Amino acid sequence: MINQQLLNPKSIVVIGGSNNVHKPGGAIVRNIKNGGFDGPLHIVNPKEDEVQGIKAYHDVKDIPNTDLAVLVVAAKFCPDYVDYLCAEKGVRAFVIISAGFGEETKAGAELEQRILDTCKKFGAALIGPNCIGLLNRNHHSVFTLPIPNLNPQGVDFVSGSGATAVFILESAVIKGLQFNSVWSIGNGKQIGIEDVLQYMDERFNPETDSKVKLLYIENISNPDKLLYHASNLIRKGCRIAAIKAGSSESGSRAASSHTGAIASSDSAVEALFRKAGIVRCFSREELTTVGCIFTLPELKGKNFAIVTHAGGPGVMLTDALSKGGLNVPKIEGPEADELKAQLFPGSSVANPIDFLATGTAEQLGTVIDYCENKFDHIDAIAVIYGTPGLTHLYEAYDVLDKKIKECKKPIFPILPSLHTAGPEVEEFLKRGHVNFSDEVTLATALSQIMRTPRPAPPEVQLYGIDLPRLHIIIKGIENNGYVSPEVVRDILSCAGIPQVPEMVSTSKEELRAFAERVGFPVVAKVVGPIHKSDVGGVTLNIRTPEHLELEFDRMMKIKDATGVMVQKMMKGTELFIGAKYETRFGHVILCGLGGIFVEVLKDVSSGLAPLSYGEAYSMIHSLKGYKILKGTRGQKGINEQKFAEIIVRLSTLLRFATEIKEMDINPLLADENDVVAVDARILIEK
Amino acid sequence: MINQQLLNPKSIVVIGGSNNVHKPGGAIVRNIKNGGFDGPLHIVNPKEDEVQGIKAYHDVKDIPNTDLAVLVVAAKFCPDYVDYLCAEKGVRAFVIISAGFGEETKAGAELEQRILDTCKKFGAALIGPNCIGLLNRNHHSVFTLPIPNLNPQGVDFVSGSGATAVFILESAVIKGLQFNSVWSIGNGKQIGIEDVLQYMDERFNPETDSKVKLLYIENISNPDKLLYHASNLIRKGCRIAAIKAGSSESGSRAASSHTGAIASSDSAVEALFRKAGIVRCFSREELTTVGCIFTLPELKGKNFAIVTHAGGPGVMLTDALSKGGLNVPKIEGPEADELKAQLFPGSSVANPIDFLATGTAEQLGTVIDYCENKFDHIDAIAVIYGTPGLTHLYEAYDVLDKKIKECKKPIFPILPSLHTAGPEVEEFLKRGHVNFSDEVTLATALSQIMRTPRPAPPEVQLYGIDLPRLHIIIKGIENNGYVSPEVVRDILSCAGIPQVPEMVSTSKEELRAFAERVGFPVVAKVVGPIHKSDVGGVTLNIRTPEHLELEFDRMMKIKDATGVMVQKMMKGTELFIGAKYETRFGHVILCGLGGIFVEVLKDVSSGLAPLSYGEAYSMIHSLKGYKILKGTRGQKGINEQKFAEIIVRLSTLLRFATEIKEMDINPLLADENDVVAVDARILIEK
Repeated sequence: MINQQLLNPKSIVVIGGSNNVHKPGGAIVRNIKNGGFDGPLHIVNPKEDEVQGIKAYHDVKDIPNTDLAVLVVAAKFCPDYVDYLCAEKGVRAFVIISAGFGEETKAGAELEQRILDTCKKFGAALIGPNCIGLLNRNHHSVFTLPIPNLNPQGVDFVSGSGATAVFILESAVIKGLQFNSVWSIGNGKQIGIEDVLQYMDERFNPETDSKVKLLYIENISNPDKLLYHASNLIRKGCRIAAIKAGSSESGSRAASSHTGAIASSDSAVEALFRKAGIVRCFSREELTTVGCIFTLPELKGKNFAIVTHAGGPGVMLTDALSKGGLNVPKIEGPEADELKAQLFPGSSVANPIDFLATGTAEQLGTVIDYCENKFDHIDAIAVIYGTPGLTHLYEAYDVLDKKIKECKKPIFPILPSLHTAGPEVEEFLKRGHVNFSDEVTLATALSQIMRTPRPAPPEVQLYGIDLPRLHIIIKGIENNGYVSPEVVRDILSCAGIPQVPEMVSTSKEELRAFAERVGFPVVAKVVGPIHKSDVGGVTLNIRTPEHLELEFDRMMKIKDATGVMVQKMMKGTELFIGAKYETRFGHVILCGLGGIFVEVLKDVSSGLAPLSYGEAYSMIHSLKGYKILKGTRGQKGINEQKFAEIIVRLSTLLRFATEIKEMDINPLLADENDVVAVDARILIEK
Repeated sequence: MINQQLLNPKSIVVIGGSNNVHKPGGAIVRNIKNGGFDGPLHIVNPKEDEVQGIKAYHDVKDIPNTDLAVLVVAAKFCPDYVDYLCAEKGVRAFVIISAGFGEETKAGAELEQRILDTCKKFGAALIGPNCIGLLNRNHHSVFTLPIPNLNPQGVDFVSGSGATAVFILESAVIKGLQFNSVWSIGNGKQIGIEDVLQYMDERFNPETDSKVKLLYIENISNPDKLLYHASNLIRKGCRIAAIKAGSSESGSRAASSHTGAIASSDSAVEALFRKAGIVRCFSREELTTVGCIFTLPELKGKNFAIVTHAGGPGVMLTDALSKGGLNVPKIEGPEADELKAQLFPGSSVANPIDFLATGTAEQLGTVIDYCENKFDHIDAIAVIYGTPGLTHLYEAYDVLDKKIKECKKPIFPILPSLHTAGPEVEEFLKRGHVNFSDEVTLATALSQIMRTPRPAPPEVQLYGIDLPRLHIIIKGIENNGYVSPEVVRDILSCAGIPQVPEMVSTSKEELRAFAERVGFPVVAKVVGPIHKSDVGGVTLNIRTPEHLELEFDRMMKIKDATGVMVQKMMKGTELFIGAKYETRFGHVILCGLGGIFVEVLKDVSSGLAPLSYGEAYSMIHSLKGYKILKGTRGQKGINEQKFAEIIVRLSTLLRFATEIKEMDINPLLADENDVVAVDARILIEK
């Protein structure tokens, strides 16, 4: 439970504070002091009288009542300190830096549990243990460097790994990214990443709170909570980007050995992030670049003007933006000519706007003004401005500073001369700006943002789902494993999913009568064996009653055969829907075209149940073979709406049937009118 | 023509050298002086007696004989200076910084031509005009900053854009990348990028020459020359990476407006680079990262050990390497246990090897030694080592320095604490090392290198191609445009490409006889209209002579019909081969599966004619649908060797028939035995 004593303490005590700034106990005192904490700061150290100019108490009993305690002593001493500080000194918030708890041994886990119990009893907040601490505008209770520049509109950064947080800060400060808070949750015994988001969501004040959140996650312990609060925050106007480390199989092994947590499948993480509207990043560089973009005004469209005095980087940026689905549209017409007349001969305004190596700071201002005020189809301005080392850039960067503050359209500064114009870039960052030193890295991050959908609506689409009947069916299933075709039919019909007419029977006469009723041709399939095709248990295109009877006799002799299923033979485009239950996440739904599209080309898209219509459409549209669904080569397209409806209904059904661990409908057959399920498998584990 | 006066002049004169280091004329004198040029340096400046401590001549007539002249005066004065210096002062090399030549006006182009003519006459070398100059270990004749550290084993960097070269150097020096030479070719009037490569190739000395070349290219003016010398250099042990700016449609428009050159299609560039074995990069960051990798020992395999004292970055690196096709294999067994015993409790050696935040410099050395000497399946070592700011890193980086120098396996240093450990990183770089500050950027560059094939063999596969007959056929074609089916057949047969039995005729009887001879079913197609299907001009599966006659009568009535073609109806997997002539590059060959694979999924791979068997196989294998060709879902695969043979033969044919501007064979039908062409179109332009 996050409280005011943690976020804005009136007083702090460092238990284990020392004079040695090469140890965490000394470094954290230095950081709190340098951070200008304005309340009383106490130190407890049995061996020192004074620590870094502050009176040190030999015994914790002697300190006055305090809000926040930072513990930098051996793990075994921590529980007693927490007990005593809560009971006797009114401490209601703890930052426990010390390691040696649950992450190392069972005994350590017990110490951790004792601390948690005490905190619960007294309503105290607990960050850690085993973390670098908490840093915000009120106090710098971290032992590490660098300390980034702080700003109420800076980034809130929450990290599941302390060392990684430090390296992410390194990558951030070089870009000028500023922070509002940095949370290292350590073992997250009481407060995890999801809890920090919950607090930010529930107390969100759009007037005063930072709107940018960056997350480094090694383990998603509560996906529902993350989804709920992240998407809430985004709906309230926040922007969130996150790294989930362990996205490959070896990476996930590496992450498990690092955190001890069970890895979640990457498709579940991907589906969760997309549902929440979280921009997914894969490197420190990408996360901090996205963070920098988030601190600028939001992009309202896809059209960039590139302003540069060096051609090449403008071309590379154009390439990278185009590949990422963004545009660098032509700029032409009388206003373009008007601008060109104000630049040196040889300049180009066609976009990229290249105003030459000899272009002046004043011309830079004029170009930006035209992009802001006269070129209406331009949504954003990328300014590439470095130096070959002849002159200083202060004047040009002054103009850039002023225009970024004035303009409504976002301006992305790309200042490449980090070495030769180091002091100018530093001065520019000091004024609160960010810098994207590589134009292609910027473009890649921008397209990753553009590709991330808005959060999905949280409502579940219940219409047309027969939940009471579903529960009765599931309850009636006695054994774990694949259920019989009849039960599959019943479950699909609970969700109102259209199915091909079919009958299962052990009676040749019944099946013949069925086939005559629905009309030939029909398909016959053996019931019993799982891999029907492999045992010769599927015959297509049966056109006569006699042929059907022959096949019946043959199939009943196949090993494990318990009956024969006869289906009306249908035509159409093959589709596929699959689902897998992922512990903690729920069901990941996959959809795609059937056959080689799934099996060879792996062209599937995924979403997390329950799905909205918008999500289902977005899944369908993101298939590489989508054009085939739209109709191509003279073929009519399929009824997309009905495909989406089946995806949505199935996802709702699964949300209420967690006993279904795996299922697929493969194939569905689709034409311009209908989509019907032809074959399906359902695996139940209770 | 590159000569010794350019590369290693005994004396230099700067025409237009000045005291103002904020102008090119002053900056270049400062750079030559600071670069420690050890011969006489002369200045010509009519207004000064001394420039930066060097005697200045008012008149060029007064200078002694000189090897190299650097010109920093207005364009209009340059031709006369070049004339005079060649004729009277023995100058045999020029670096012309001045702009205002062919890149601006027609008059400028004439000045440029005069200079070229003079240089030709006197056998003088010419760099520029309109460039930043030439920088090597003998002289720093560039006017820009930064000046990178120079080293005989550093990078040779050739750039088609001066400003971009400067920004690439910015990105390089921060990483510690060292250079052997930097060439800014400017307008490349005499010496272009291809000429520099030619010189390096023809004079290559494996004992003394740098083996790393980086290129920034805006315009490939002589693709054959680039291909020839780049692949030669790579075969001699060099490694080459290049950016070709203008890879997207808008980027290529931007590049054209920037350079005035005609853009080449991106697939031609891609095919050229792959054929040459050049690693293709898309950003300054990527190019300099690949450059840094190239300065380390070559990777002999795909297996990485990740050595770190911080878990998160190790996990992200594992993810990125795995996604890029590289491995982070498990490390286990008695030697792993032995190593683990030498680390602090809680360390993991499973790979990533995490020796904890408290791990020592000595332990770092031990871990690297085990990776080098005991873990035989490890090919390379990535060391992630930063700091939370408690202690300095000099000791750890000393160990790293020593191990990089000692070890045979490449060690990739990832030092993220550029801010907090700035001085330590700087000291490390000063010892000649490079630094990859972001682990994922490194992994992406590594996988780009791994994906680049070796240079293709330069031999043309002539076997089975009837060139004399081909020339007669092509000569006999009178009009530009699509040629008739008979000519298509003839051309394909010159290359020995198997074709489906077919006959074109205006005689119903002849066609009927043909169909009876090859056997029904057959296909009938109208001859004349280009888009046969659209006008109802294709009928499949004709099973009787009567049906064939009916179709013949119908088709002959279609507008523009000049006959009917009857083909034996074949079955099999549809394949596709296409080719397009690209000015200067030759033919780009595309191959893929037919139908939706080409039209919807754009699953094609490309190569540059003439192709070797190795290249054809590599094209086939890189198709996303390759598994279908191998055989899948109970279907047999196709005869891959015959497919490759047709690709190779077609590519050879086209190499000798540049009149063919476009052609495709679509479809070819393939089964496990044969691949035959069913339909083809050929467009001739003479």
